Amino acid sequence: MNFASDNWAGAHPAIAQALTEQSGGFATAYGLSDLDRAVEGRFCEIFEREVAVFFVATGTAANSLSMALVNRPGGVIFCHAHAHMLEDEGGAPEYLTGGARTHGVEGALGRVGTGALGKAIQQFPAEFVHMGQPMAVSITQATEIGTVYSLDEIAAISQTCRAHGLPLHMDGARFANALAALDTTPAEMTWKRGVDIVSFGATKNGCWCAEAIVVMDPTQARDMPFLRKRAAHLFSKSRFIAAQFDAYFRDDLWLKNARHANAMAVRLAGHIGKSSRLRLAWQPAANEVFAIMASSTAEEFKAAGVIFHPWQAPHEGLIGEGEMLGRFVTSFATAEEEVDRFGGMIA
Amino acid sequence: MNFASDNWAGAHPAIAQALTEQSGGFATAYGLSDLDRAVEGRFCEIFEREVAVFFVATGTAANSLSMALVNRPGGVIFCHAHAHMLEDEGGAPEYLTGGARTHGVEGALGRVGTGALGKAIQQFPAEFVHMGQPMAVSITQATEIGTVYSLDEIAAISQTCRAHGLPLHMDGARFANALAALDTTPAEMTWKRGVDIVSFGATKNGCWCAEAIVVMDPTQARDMPFLRKRAAHLFSKSRFIAAQFDAYFRDDLWLKNARHANAMAVRLAGHIGKSSRLRLAWQPAANEVFAIMASSTAEEFKAAGVIFHPWQAPHEGLIGEGEMLGRFVTSFATAEEEVDRFGGMIA
Amino acid sequence: MNFASDNWAGAHPAIAQALTEQSGGFATAYGLSDLDRAVEGRFCEIFEREVAVFFVATGTAANSLSMALVNRPGGVIFCHAHAHMLEDEGGAPEYLTGGARTHGVEGALGRVGTGALGKAIQQFPAEFVHMGQPMAVSITQATEIGTVYSLDEIAAISQTCRAHGLPLHMDGARFANALAALDTTPAEMTWKRGVDIVSFGATKNGCWCAEAIVVMDPTQARDMPFLRKRAAHLFSKSRFIAAQFDAYFRDDLWLKNARHANAMAVRLAGHIGKSSRLRLAWQPAANEVFAIMASSTAEEFKAAGVIFHPWQAPHEGLIGEGEMLGRFVTSFATAEEEVDRFGGMIA
Amino acid sequence: MNFASDNWAGAHPAIAQALTEQSGGFATAYGLSDLDRAVEGRFCEIFEREVAVFFVATGTAANSLSMALVNRPGGVIFCHAHAHMLEDEGGAPEYLTGGARTHGVEGALGRVGTGALGKAIQQFPAEFVHMGQPMAVSITQATEIGTVYSLDEIAAISQTCRAHGLPLHMDGARFANALAALDTTPAEMTWKRGVDIVSFGATKNGCWCAEAIVVMDPTQARDMPFLRKRAAHLFSKSRFIAAQFDAYFRDDLWLKNARHANAMAVRLAGHIGKSSRLRLAWQPAANEVFAIMASSTAEEFKAAGVIFHPWQAPHEGLIGEGEMLGRFVTSFATAEEEVDRFGGMIA
Repeated sequence: MNFASDNWAGAHPAIAQALTEQSGGFATAYGLSDLDRAVEGRFCEIFEREVAVFFVATGTAANSLSMALVNRPGGVIFCHAHAHMLEDEGGAPEYLTGGARTHGVEGALGRVGTGALGKAIQQFPAEFVHMGQPMAVSITQATEIGTVYSLDEIAAISQTCRAHGLPLHMDGARFANALAALDTTPAEMTWKRGVDIVSFGATKNGCWCAEAIVVMDPTQARDMPFLRKRAAHLFSKSRFIAAQFDAYFRDDLWLKNARHANAMAVRLAGHIGKSSRLRLAWQPAANEVFAIMASSTAEEFKAAGVIFHPWQAPHEGLIGEGEMLGRFVTSFATAEEEVDRFGGMIA
Repeated sequence: MNFASDNWAGAHPAIAQALTEQSGGFATAYGLSDLDRAVEGRFCEIFEREVAVFFVATGTAANSLSMALVNRPGGVIFCHAHAHMLEDEGGAPEYLTGGARTHGVEGALGRVGTGALGKAIQQFPAEFVHMGQPMAVSITQATEIGTVYSLDEIAAISQTCRAHGLPLHMDGARFANALAALDTTPAEMTWKRGVDIVSFGATKNGCWCAEAIVVMDPTQARDMPFLRKRAAHLFSKSRFIAAQFDAYFRDDLWLKNARHANAMAVRLAGHIGKSSRLRLAWQPAANEVFAIMASSTAEEFKAAGVIFHPWQAPHEGLIGEGEMLGRFVTSFATAEEEVDRFGGMIA
Repeated sequence: MNFASDNWAGAHPAIAQALTEQSGGFATAYGLSDLDRAVEGRFCEIFEREVAVFFVATGTAANSLSMALVNRPGGVIFCHAHAHMLEDEGGAPEYLTGGARTHGVEGALGRVGTGALGKAIQQFPAEFVHMGQPMAVSITQATEIGTVYSLDEIAAISQTCRAHGLPLHMDGARFANALAALDTTPAEMTWKRGVDIVSFGATKNGCWCAEAIVVMDPTQARDMPFLRKRAAHLFSKSRFIAAQFDAYFRDDLWLKNARHANAMAVRLAGHIGKSSRLRLAWQPAANEVFAIMASSTAEEFKAAGVIFHPWQAPHEGLIGEGEMLGRFVTSFATAEEEVDRFGGMIA
Repeated sequence: MNFASDNWAGAHPAIAQALTEQSGGFATAYGLSDLDRAVEGRFCEIFEREVAVFFVATGTAANSLSMALVNRPGGVIFCHAHAHMLEDEGGAPEYLTGGARTHGVEGALGRVGTGALGKAIQQFPAEFVHMGQPMAVSITQATEIGTVYSLDEIAAISQTCRAHGLPLHMDGARFANALAALDTTPAEMTWKRGVDIVSFGATKNGCWCAEAIVVMDPTQARDMPFLRKRAAHLFSKSRFIAAQFDAYFRDDLWLKNARHANAMAVRLAGHIGKSSRLRLAWQPAANEVFAIMASSTAEEFKAAGVIFHPWQAPHEGLIGEGEMLGRFVTSFATAEEEVDRFGGMIA
């Protein structure tokens, strides 16, 4: 009963097979192989437009280099107060931009509030050199706490971005899960709603290492090859990243994986909803379920082999005396039987 | 007849198999899995001492973060004038150290000259703030041009380092090839000769992505976890890097691969030595062969499907009128038949 | 009636005279002149211990390079949520540390709360690479809002620093004003209470450009000459900074200036306390007075030639409907007559 | 007989007086005072066009922030192999650009050779990510060794820049000396010959601290206020820099000072030309004289109170056995009597 994280999972068999198939022969290094090019073409199809695609080693690299691409001196990035970029990337966005700052914006259920965003940006008057200058807005889809932005919410945020001349970045570490949750298309969820750059994550959804920066307007991506190389993120045998994406997109594996993960979260939430030992902190939309329980119950689960992470409550009053908040993550590798086994335990 | 580069090769079947075997199950992320730990132990065995090991995505990252570990403000890195770090890493060492400089030192056959090194360091008087301060020496083993430092040469360079209080780094993108060429042990080639940090490359020698920073004295490595995270080089599913190294070290696969690559270089050099159409630029020691030929001959080879890279001659007078210098790289994947096919072509 | 800022003032006549006297003759450049050395000696006398002193161009440079000196990868600086370093330096601390982050800590009346500080630091578990690592605590004395830390409060904060192995920095842009307010000595206000580094500002208190980084333990300052040079803050004709400090310390000019400025603040606060048109937001301790008034009153003052800055209220509920918060700054150059003229206007 | 450096001189009396006159009253801080604006206007008159002007603390800051303005990821700056930027700024250009590299270009008599420049740039093919990308060319006028570029030479270099789409920067630490040597105008020596940015130095020519970045096309300078603030180079009491420039330009003080310094160099060179104890290394054009002498002679001079710096010879064969190269710098403060006293000593 392992609900620790979707990055504790391994790789989907189809991904492993693709890597094996790719292991022979010679191919141009540094992202210039035929397979690299073909996969870039697949991204264009999937996004229904010409996009520029750059593989990097980690989601943190994708986020940080996206920010480096739109960097401005004294730059300020607006993201949710509990965004991964702000809390969990060890200072990489600040480092790889040479000192840009992340400015946390409040918002319910892990989503940047449009009103709060506009207000935050206005705190930085243009040309007022002492505070620095706004440079980007970043949202996480699905969010850190398993919720998703609706298409309208994305559009509203991008409108605020436009009003202030700021690019909109989407941290898509769980892009596929959000897509499946909204039952929409990549194009609808991104550029048709004003998103300019996506950190397109596939690692959590069945690859072992496949992250890409997708720039919607390739003319804006001119510096990225140099940014990536300079950050030491240009793989020599890049075709092995390409091979993962190739298999990931083939026969909609990525969507199937995401739908499965989301379905397991729904199933898990169902068990929790019926249990008297835990309660849902909020309704899950993607592949993460947050539940409140007595600390003693958490200890009991742990002893019984249930693996999950404690989480810091996003707002006061959510957690009662002697309680804790737990995060349960599902993935392509989560078996229905395991979910039900946990369901049985809490019934 | 592909002699373009050892990073045009794929992955050894044993590496592919190891990845597949690792694809199932759950494992702690971010380098804390049992397999990660086991592989760290293997490094200690191989180096015959307690070492600290950090996986990163690329050789450029290994070099750059090694430098970041020993960074000093206004710092100057001494390396060969044609070192990869200086010429081929797109400014990554400078960037990831926040502006350290690489200072090229001359030396015959791709090796830093001990005399030239001492002279170069002395140009930077201690406390003379205008020039900056020496911070590290880096040598490449095997070198960029397929030669190797003898153990005595390494010891002589490290003596110069000690005299100036500087750490010695070894760029081991082709570590195994050098080891095989010298028929020695990792311990003898590194810390027993005064090397402090190694960029330990396995990608070029049969992995698809496996690079590690090995710090000989773990107490000196305290900051590295933060440096790596901050540079976005901490893999979430790190066990897949570990799995590659695990297979790489098992049954001496790494040494076998390197010996094969080196043997193919010797074989290739033998063909060239007997040919009237090319001549060896210098004697190869590892897995790279450099040969001089008429430019028209190079064109002819190209048309016949021989893939190799033109190279800039390291010194004047080497190349005659109408001639060019070509680099031929062999690897674990180079077939004897292909070498002989080329041999037949130039006989 | 100019209460805009203490950096709108000019230079004290004694400072101007010192510069003129220094204008002739030749002196070693780059901080190595006899006068530079003599002034360093004066700092040692004033702090009653051997200290290391580094002149820089701005207070922002002093703060930022102090942080660069104690920099750690993924480093986090703890300071007040409304500290100058966090809100008004255009990203310089982040930039000159290569991406360290400033983490705002709440606290009443502009002072970091000891409890809140400990709690904030504990959010960053040692070795938890994802969040980064604590690297320093910085307090501002006098604070941004004209209050001062008592000696006991400084000691309590440094105790928290010690408990977590963190250096304590003091932003002393208004060091002299705080000293005069507490009627204590530099030694008592700094290293005897556990302060490790001081940004020692003299510009606001009568110099035209004189800022120094004072490192209490010179053995900790080894890298600073290189840090300063690398940030382009080493003046060639450094003796002109030295000359300002020389005059600043002579005959206690600095203390006289600060006492005058503080006395003018007390006088101004007295006028406001008796007025029905404004009320004090809080009791001033140094040379800044904050008062609440109707916005229409502020407009009226402005029209009458009173110059002061609107200020963002540090907490909700302070300002009523239709009101605003104004900052009035006094300095060595503030004339008693001008204060009383304003007093007459609001009586 | 002090010929150590033009930054060992003090300040011209007119500069000192201007500072004193400015010491009273209140003025808007951070570069927004009336005097700041007026001096910006003077720069426009002097350059005969609208320019953007930014005061900074040091010449190193002017150079480094000029480079930061035109920064590109993986960027390479081309300058003379012995340029100040490359050899004497402690890594500041690399640091303040976040890792750009300076690439030394050879050229006789301290001047970048046009042929060598074109060749150097061509070594970096567009889009070849491994080497990085050219970002700027910087020339020093007058050069480090007292020579000057002719107007035609500047034009030829800027033509090469245009051909490669690179901006041309001029390090004008001794701008006035070069101007006086060529008897031309600022406009002719800069933008009319294709120069885009100038580090305009006044410190060495009679100010105590007055350095400015002058951007010929203000629309290209949009980011500079933020770059300057972020590097902690925005003076609060900026009007005191402005006051120096104001006096510097009044009644052509700057040109008079430069002409005097240059004339003293000519006079000194005349003495040396007639002496049997030294010989000119090359003909001086501005305010630096380089002479070759026996090392024993240098010792003798030193004992007699002649202050000058030894210099590294720019090419082999210049200095004979037992000889050394000495640099003698003149300035506005060099007295004719002192020059002649030295002349008498060597006659």
